[in-house]
Amino acid sequence: MLKDFEKSKPEEKEILNEEIKALRARLIGQQQLIREKKLPVLVLIEGWAAAGKGSLIKEIISEIDPRFYNVVSPSVIPESEMRYPFLYPYAAAIPENGKLIFLDSGWMESVVRKELRLEISGKEYKRRVRAVNEFERQLRDGGYLVLKLFLHIDEEEQEERLESLCENADTEWRVTQDDLWQHREYKKFLKAYDEFMDETNDFVKWHVLDGQRKKTAVRDAMKLLVEKIDKALEKERYVGEPFEEKFPLLKMPKLADVDLSPTISDEEYKSELKKLQKRLSELHNVIYRKKIPVIICYEGWDAAGKGGNIRRVAYPLDPRGFDVHPIASPLPHELNRQYLWRFWTRLPRTGHICIFDRTWYGRVMVERLEGFCTEKDWKRAYNEINEFERQLTDWGAVLLKFWIHIDQDTQLARFTERQNTPEKQWKITEEDWRNRDKWPQYEEAVDEMLQKTSTENAPWYIIESNDKHYARIKALKIIVKALEKACEKHFKESFD
Amino acid sequence: MLKDFEKSKPEEKEILNEEIKALRARLIGQQQLIREKKLPVLVLIEGWAAAGKGSLIKEIISEIDPRFYNVVSPSVIPESEMRYPFLYPYAAAIPENGKLIFLDSGWMESVVRKELRLEISGKEYKRRVRAVNEFERQLRDGGYLVLKLFLHIDEEEQEERLESLCENADTEWRVTQDDLWQHREYKKFLKAYDEFMDETNDFVKWHVLDGQRKKTAVRDAMKLLVEKIDKALEKERYVGEPFEEKFPLLKMPKLADVDLSPTISDEEYKSELKKLQKRLSELHNVIYRKKIPVIICYEGWDAAGKGGNIRRVAYPLDPRGFDVHPIASPLPHELNRQYLWRFWTRLPRTGHICIFDRTWYGRVMVERLEGFCTEKDWKRAYNEINEFERQLTDWGAVLLKFWIHIDQDTQLARFTERQNTPEKQWKITEEDWRNRDKWPQYEEAVDEMLQKTSTENAPWYIIESNDKHYARIKALKIIVKALEKACEKHFKESFD
Repeated sequence: MLKDFEKSKPEEKEILNEEIKALRARLIGQQQLIREKKLPVLVLIEGWAAAGKGSLIKEIISEIDPRFYNVVSPSVIPESEMRYPFLYPYAAAIPENGKLIFLDSGWMESVVRKELRLEISGKEYKRRVRAVNEFERQLRDGGYLVLKLFLHIDEEEQEERLESLCENADTEWRVTQDDLWQHREYKKFLKAYDEFMDETNDFVKWHVLDGQRKKTAVRDAMKLLVEKIDKALEKERYVGEPFEEKFPLLKMPKLADVDLSPTISDEEYKSELKKLQKRLSELHNVIYRKKIPVIICYEGWDAAGKGGNIRRVAYPLDPRGFDVHPIASPLPHELNRQYLWRFWTRLPRTGHICIFDRTWYGRVMVERLEGFCTEKDWKRAYNEINEFERQLTDWGAVLLKFWIHIDQDTQLARFTERQNTPEKQWKITEEDWRNRDKWPQYEEAVDEMLQKTSTENAPWYIIESNDKHYARIKALKIIVKALEKACEKHFKESFD
Repeated sequence: MLKDFEKSKPEEKEILNEEIKALRARLIGQQQLIREKKLPVLVLIEGWAAAGKGSLIKEIISEIDPRFYNVVSPSVIPESEMRYPFLYPYAAAIPENGKLIFLDSGWMESVVRKELRLEISGKEYKRRVRAVNEFERQLRDGGYLVLKLFLHIDEEEQEERLESLCENADTEWRVTQDDLWQHREYKKFLKAYDEFMDETNDFVKWHVLDGQRKKTAVRDAMKLLVEKIDKALEKERYVGEPFEEKFPLLKMPKLADVDLSPTISDEEYKSELKKLQKRLSELHNVIYRKKIPVIICYEGWDAAGKGGNIRRVAYPLDPRGFDVHPIASPLPHELNRQYLWRFWTRLPRTGHICIFDRTWYGRVMVERLEGFCTEKDWKRAYNEINEFERQLTDWGAVLLKFWIHIDQDTQLARFTERQNTPEKQWKITEEDWRNRDKWPQYEEAVDEMLQKTSTENAPWYIIESNDKHYARIKALKIIVKALEKACEKHFKESFD
């Protein structure tokens, strides 16, 4: 894309100014519609050091109401200090519906720079490219307008600009060691940028702007933006089609075929619980020191015993090293963003454990059944979730998913007990009874979810919980085993 | 407090265990009430290195449902890297109504350590002590249950514990250089802790626990917690009384006496605007490099021209270095916390500018007039806000507050124009008309606000905005002047 880039021809300044003025007026006019139609717009601006990314953004936004956009400049954090998946800062920065975000360099700069610095392996580079494509497609399919721009200048131009910045005491500080390194390695960067752009051009296209002609670049960027916004506003909000993607799926039984009879004696329960909790406590220490992030997901029927199960897992953990996230209906600012956003922003840091009490699987259960999203949305979600989870495990996370399972009779008995016990009444609501009426529909949805999202890297475990004690021991055993495995293989694979 | 601390006597282990068990049961019983009564609970646990803060927290929470508490361990960030006011991490961590937060060391450790390291001056230490008192009182008065514990061990005991940790390869990593430094300087720390506790014992009392008897410490901590929760649950949620506090107030005119006739010619407007924006752009650079944070607050009548005014200020700024926060009604998770929380969490980093389009002054305007808080709440807020703002300017922030002022006729004309102009209709709502009907009440509230919160460090400026052009130039001039002053005196005062 860069190698065969044709420089733009000189244009008359006055005509350019007129064009920019007209585009600005159009953008101002679009503001209100963007808000009304709740269109989220993400503009990613990548490019060479000293290419003028900052000024370009400034020109584009100069007349937009500053309450409707944000400019975000995530810094490239050295791999050794990264406590979150590499996409985390960008996923956290996605705009709310009706707002614009300008990213002043983003995932491309981060991935390419680390590749060239050999901070990440070739294999990891490929994984990141794949994740970037997934991330971009998910935003597009979720109705986001994503515009990717690259501001290009040639080697000679870069040299001149860096020199002139360095000559002036007022601007010298703007030139970083990284910028100078990039300039020394211009040809390597050129090749790497080119490759990255080729590899990430499938879902959201790249647009190269000529950074050597500033006004032309502003005009071109604004034209692209204004036209894409117009196009997005013309139609209903885009909803992506479900797609096929092969994941290494594990065979899961149907819920109806699960034998719920297993129990455990009181005595065995007590001794196992103590043993497993002790082991988990030791492992938490190792996890912490080896900086392995752990994510444990709980889903299950109402009154299946999620809360008590979670408590037995949390008990032996160092309270400074874990979090439990109860997931309820999304808040307005969460509902106004892609559905995975509220999970991205709750991920644990490396070395920490986080437990989700209900998860992103709400998309293919309650949201599906209550019509909170379209059919295309929840059908697409199986693969989107598989992608998201692969990104988490690629990052190095241990990811476990529990379906806490009971039968309808057990649920009824527990509901009734809650209803009849004053201090437990708060646990039971009208909604629980309503959900119970929809048991068959939920069972169908859960079966489909288990079939489609139990991957090798992020398997589902059905936890038989008619006997809650049995369920707790089973969950603990799975966690302990998974953490032991992770601790063993951690060093071996860390630069694989 | 520490010097005259009497060590606890040995107690029978079994009795202690029974007591702890009983307290745990009480705490479990309280959980549901805490949630129902929406009581927020913050437990601050300070203490010596190796005193066992982590284990203490673990024991206290061991039976609480992990969905209702969080443990936060803010690290002490070196002063040179602090991009936010020193209270920021703690203010951001305060619990929602109905939840518990355990702080594993907090503001005390941070202030004392920096004092002993000479990272902050004696004067700054005093300012921080004052801010801590203000912060604690504000939480208490806002209905928070705050419990402050200090886990004490003597020098000999600390030595033994650190040695035994260092002897074991599995635990050696837990001992930091800072811990060893503390041990070497035990006596200095003892004195400094003691002083800090004496100075911050007015609003929320300190409780010293004997860290040398672990079970006793657990029992004592739980007893304090359980009893305080009981006491808080017995009564209605506490609402603090308004209080008197002397701030250096500036004399402000009444709104009715403000002359709204000033205007500016088109020609002068254009040339001034250009000049001032250019200067502001230069100053933004200096601000950024000198790491001065800037906070600009806009309040004013509906249709007074806040939006257009803000846009003229934002236009020349580097978009990577500023944010505009439009403040609407609080979201549920914001409403569930002390009213300043949503502003604490939106503060700019050092070197950045942030513009609030409506602010914390909502407390003494709309919340007062619409009855969204009690009379005591809004009456107390004047001084609480003065304290908050002093904390911001003590941190080094430039803080400017604009009241964008018009008269009723001008508002009517602008409302009518909005109503009659299709592309402006979205700007006018039923609520605007309702607010207009309450002009006299609002005027009274604004007058009181201006009288009581225009301080030397955070002055109010009334911006006459019947002529919007005049208003923009006036605001820009004030900003430019304030930034010039800040840039000049920055270095001079930075270690004052």
